[in-house]
Amino acid sequence: MKTIEEITEHGVTERRFQLEVDGETVPGILWTPEHAQGPRPLVLQGHGGTQHKRVPNVLSLARRLVRHSGYAVAAIDAPGHGDRMTDEDREHNRAIRRDGGAMTEERRKRLTERGRRATGEWKATLDALQRRDEIGDSGPVGYWGVSMGSAFGIPFVAAEPRITCAIFGLAALTMGREALASSAEKIEVPLLFMNQLNDELMTPDSALALFVAFGSKEKTMHINPGPHMGIPGFEVEHYETFYARHMGTATS
Amino acid sequence: MKTIEEITEHGVTERRFQLEVDGETVPGILWTPEHAQGPRPLVLQGHGGTQHKRVPNVLSLARRLVRHSGYAVAAIDAPGHGDRMTDEDREHNRAIRRDGGAMTEERRKRLTERGRRATGEWKATLDALQRRDEIGDSGPVGYWGVSMGSAFGIPFVAAEPRITCAIFGLAALTMGREALASSAEKIEVPLLFMNQLNDELMTPDSALALFVAFGSKEKTMHINPGPHMGIPGFEVEHYETFYARHMGTATS
Repeated sequence: MKTIEEITEHGVTERRFQLEVDGETVPGILWTPEHAQGPRPLVLQGHGGTQHKRVPNVLSLARRLVRHSGYAVAAIDAPGHGDRMTDEDREHNRAIRRDGGAMTEERRKRLTERGRRATGEWKATLDALQRRDEIGDSGPVGYWGVSMGSAFGIPFVAAEPRITCAIFGLAALTMGREALASSAEKIEVPLLFMNQLNDELMTPDSALALFVAFGSKEKTMHINPGPHMGIPGFEVEHYETFYARHMGTATS
Repeated sequence: MKTIEEITEHGVTERRFQLEVDGETVPGILWTPEHAQGPRPLVLQGHGGTQHKRVPNVLSLARRLVRHSGYAVAAIDAPGHGDRMTDEDREHNRAIRRDGGAMTEERRKRLTERGRRATGEWKATLDALQRRDEIGDSGPVGYWGVSMGSAFGIPFVAAEPRITCAIFGLAALTMGREALASSAEKIEVPLLFMNQLNDELMTPDSALALFVAFGSKEKTMHINPGPHMGIPGFEVEHYETFYARHMGTATS
């Protein structure tokens, strides 16, 4: 893990880093309290499709969890996203925006292949983060990611026993995504599952089917009115209390 | 409103009162901070079927809202419940426990008639409470009630413009309860709607249909695994933040 840049604003230190994973350079950001020392809970944030590691919802939740709970928070650019985006990826994203993201066989394959790589990259990132003094390798680790952050995050959390609890959302057992169910069944940690009643990419029924599939005994589904890109701002407060309930808070 | 008894424990004053409404004596409890003076937000709590105004979930939420938020909280015995229960009511409740509460035509009629009376009793109670110095008639008023507390609470909130926000749950557009939809459509205040995935009295689909029917722009449905009588304890924290968001808190 190579630190590229480090700045501190309003008590939050933001470190841009790079990590080599399977011959690819994965760019990431680590947010920690200024002068953080010793172990603390860690949250990994997976951004949505066509987005990147520092989109406003990722950045604001990261800063909030650092300031209010003393956590470390990390985000990486997913394969083909952010600083890793090629001209071909840009054209792919334009096509998605044109047709509203309808799932085709080609897109499903691309998503599955990238999801596989994302799991390996998250595991390598977690290995590197847990070697840092201000995180440590024995503390709780939460995951947060909706939409593509869930499409990639659900298989990752299913394969990663170090994850203590997770927030997913904007995901469903829609046509072509049935494989998500077998990952969901393997997950047994407490979950918060965020959904939008008028999500143009899935029905409430198919989202409920994914909620039912999760193997977790403690899991809560939240449904709010509105489109895919419209989880209400007040839910951020529930993210914070959910993590605090399952991972505690840090004071140093 | 006649005060029958007043005790103060750990900073919470609990007043048992009686109110005459349409020739019936309605017994209630008002919880306020010790030495409360001047206006503050008020929460009305409707208990569940076969229960009463001081069941553990009503009592603990009342104390919590008084201690943490400085609110006034009131609960009354619904028609045929608590101190108003007759031998015929007791036999009726035993029958409900025997067959799991299946909805028959007789039960539906009884529920509708009692719901009508409950709305009048809540309105009279709210009138009386708002004449008290430590509540006042200009502050926000929240409602909380699940199961029968929603079956009675939804028509009440639909008919009562003084209600600022409400928490409902364990209710659905099941067979014979379609009338609930017309009340739900009239409600436009922010809502939290609590549901149980394995509720033996309704399907997730019929609960979702009621959620969709509510006229409110801001409404959130929570679904947790488990039976009708099993909303997880951690949701209480969300009740508190929901009310705080819509009604603020009191300091004196």
